[in-house]
Amino acid sequence: MLLDDGRFDEWIHLFDENARYSITTRENLAQKNPIGILSCDDARMLRDRVAALRDANIYEPHHYNHLNSIPVLVDEALDQQWRTNFLVHRIMERGETMLFASGYYLDTFTSGTPSLQFLSRKVVLDSSAIDTLLVIPL
Amino acid sequence: MLLDDGRFDEWIHLFDENARYSITTRENLAQKNPIGILSCDDARMLRDRVAALRDANIYEPHHYNHLNSIPVLVDEALDQQWRTNFLVHRIMERGETMLFASGYYLDTFTSGTPSLQFLSRKVVLDSSAIDTLLVIPL
Amino acid sequence: MLLDDGRFDEWIHLFDENARYSITTRENLAQKNPIGILSCDDARMLRDRVAALRDANIYEPHHYNHLNSIPVLVDEALDQQWRTNFLVHRIMERGETMLFASGYYLDTFTSGTPSLQFLSRKVVLDSSAIDTLLVIPL
Repeated sequence: MLLDDGRFDEWIHLFDENARYSITTRENLAQKNPIGILSCDDARMLRDRVAALRDANIYEPHHYNHLNSIPVLVDEALDQQWRTNFLVHRIMERGETMLFASGYYLDTFTSGTPSLQFLSRKVVLDSSAIDTLLVIPL
Repeated sequence: MLLDDGRFDEWIHLFDENARYSITTRENLAQKNPIGILSCDDARMLRDRVAALRDANIYEPHHYNHLNSIPVLVDEALDQQWRTNFLVHRIMERGETMLFASGYYLDTFTSGTPSLQFLSRKVVLDSSAIDTLLVIPL
Repeated sequence: MLLDDGRFDEWIHLFDENARYSITTRENLAQKNPIGILSCDDARMLRDRVAALRDANIYEPHHYNHLNSIPVLVDEALDQQWRTNFLVHRIMERGETMLFASGYYLDTFTSGTPSLQFLSRKVVLDSSAIDTLLVIPL
């Protein structure tokens, strides 16, 4: 919801200083291909990414609508990894709305259970045919 | 789900007698424009609105599918205000399905936490390009 | 999520041996028409169905994205029946994504409340205009 509102600074505060954030695709993951679409090793890299986004700011105004399912614990061994399916719709300034991305999050949290501080978030996109201009983080 | 089933009387019973119900857009809200798409000051106005809908009843048969995210507490000060993202798809009689509206609810409840009685529900639409014939409440 | 990943054997293990699984439409249900799209009387029939699917395996590769709402208790008398709205998007191999089905689940569980073992799952589709080639279970 913070991303939907363009409140990027608050969104970054959801991440631990050492948190990893990455975006990849189902296909890359299945092929154990380490090269994803985006990879930030810690919150500092994520802040740089968001600052660049704000400075560039040349894109047509739009915002997102994130709809998430209930998180499900998928791996107790792996730092309590949780999975959440998502749909992201994009709404352009003139009102056209389209499905922008679908997929799932794989998350770990500092407290072990879903809470306000991410230790890692991996965004796994369903489709490899994603608009490469991933303007706003997912 | 009550709206999806056309069970409007039961839906109205989810609202306290003094509950406010309104529909506005992100744009209106950002501009602090008080004029929204619909505003009912209490449950009586909402009942009138739904009765008018049932009497008019001239529209092509259709129903909705509401998909809501988990409610998140967004303002502890403001009577415990909760936010829930939604997608509403509309299914016409012959089966065509389309995204009809997306946005979020801002809700307060008589008990403070999400429960069966609304003290207020504000529907904030993502897009201003909404079909003005908002036949069924959102 | 198991269906989204094609992990059908694990999905079947979510069902009690005596569990019923059926797919019908809102229209059939409203007309109390017992003939649905699919009906499995127990887990054995469901396994057969999934095995046939795997052997046939002639369809264009694709996968699903299920997005479910929070389950709501709709009937306390009826073995504690729970309802969950869903949207299923289908992602083809080349990346095109489309809304494939919307509707709701009516579920009962061996423990009475939402948990890992279904006693019954009825899939109620919003639209009767569903692709009859329901390759993957919903």
